[in-house]
Amino acid sequence: MANPSQPPVTMAEGKYLQLVKQGKWEYVRRKGISGIVAIVAVTDDGKLLLVEQYRPPVGRRVVELPAGLAGDEPGSENEPLSAAAARELFEETGYEAREMTQVGAGTASAGLTDEFITLFRATGLKKTGAGAGVGGEQITLQEVPLAGVEQWLAQKVTEGCLIDLKVYGGLYFANAQR
Amino acid sequence: MANPSQPPVTMAEGKYLQLVKQGKWEYVRRKGISGIVAIVAVTDDGKLLLVEQYRPPVGRRVVELPAGLAGDEPGSENEPLSAAAARELFEETGYEAREMTQVGAGTASAGLTDEFITLFRATGLKKTGAGAGVGGEQITLQEVPLAGVEQWLAQKVTEGCLIDLKVYGGLYFANAQR
Repeated sequence: MANPSQPPVTMAEGKYLQLVKQGKWEYVRRKGISGIVAIVAVTDDGKLLLVEQYRPPVGRRVVELPAGLAGDEPGSENEPLSAAAARELFEETGYEAREMTQVGAGTASAGLTDEFITLFRATGLKKTGAGAGVGGEQITLQEVPLAGVEQWLAQKVTEGCLIDLKVYGGLYFANAQR
Repeated sequence: MANPSQPPVTMAEGKYLQLVKQGKWEYVRRKGISGIVAIVAVTDDGKLLLVEQYRPPVGRRVVELPAGLAGDEPGSENEPLSAAAARELFEETGYEAREMTQVGAGTASAGLTDEFITLFRATGLKKTGAGAGVGGEQITLQEVPLAGVEQWLAQKVTEGCLIDLKVYGGLYFANAQR
């Protein structure tokens, strides 16, 4: 049981992550970011934008909402979250959004990490770039009709991909709008 | 960019977590578990079971799906995930389920951790115990009518709680069944 009054102690520190112990509780902190954003982007013709990439922690390709870190580049420490969401959406998918609206926010795994993710809904989408990520990222854009998304995800699993659970949270918000 | 062919190197090791580097990619692994389960439990009268507890990594109370680790106790290494789901549901909420059905599975934060969570839907619920957790856990059970769950979550946020994003994934699966 963790005692809130006990101070956290750094066990190890990498360039991006910090392993921390607070009482008996161990967890990991992200360093040098101001937030994390994920985007529920649905095109005018009802397609959800998903991204697929290899993820070292699980050693598999993973299907996820477009997402990324805010304030992690020198000089961008004060980047507003909505700007980070627009930037990540464009970098990963090549789409620009007319509206970017915050629809929710929450933890990814509150027993393990301090990650806190702000979810945006992007509408009025227009493809104006290539997508596929920056700086060595190798990202495949998937445009999936909402009506058939469950079957599409099931097919991806049979092909050996994993699905990030935030995709289902995204589907909740996508469906709530229709 | 991570190279799948580079071997992971352990940077630090705690009792429960391991900080790993693979090429330039840093991530955290959970030690000594066989899986993670989370439960979308809806009572016969349409209430979703949620749990609320203090989480050291974020320093706040967090509203989450009932959830827990499988195979983390000596002698339980081969605990089936559905048994772990039934055990965690009972420990945290005091409810037993007539049916426990796998509805999905996926990563929590595939860039940061190897966490992979299997989602179960629990139905035919009957309260037969106290709940509130084991071994020093201090868990508050919340039984929230599905019809008003968004307003309830918004109220919790105004009280200073955080919401775990898996709750929204759970709502997707809960609504898909009705």
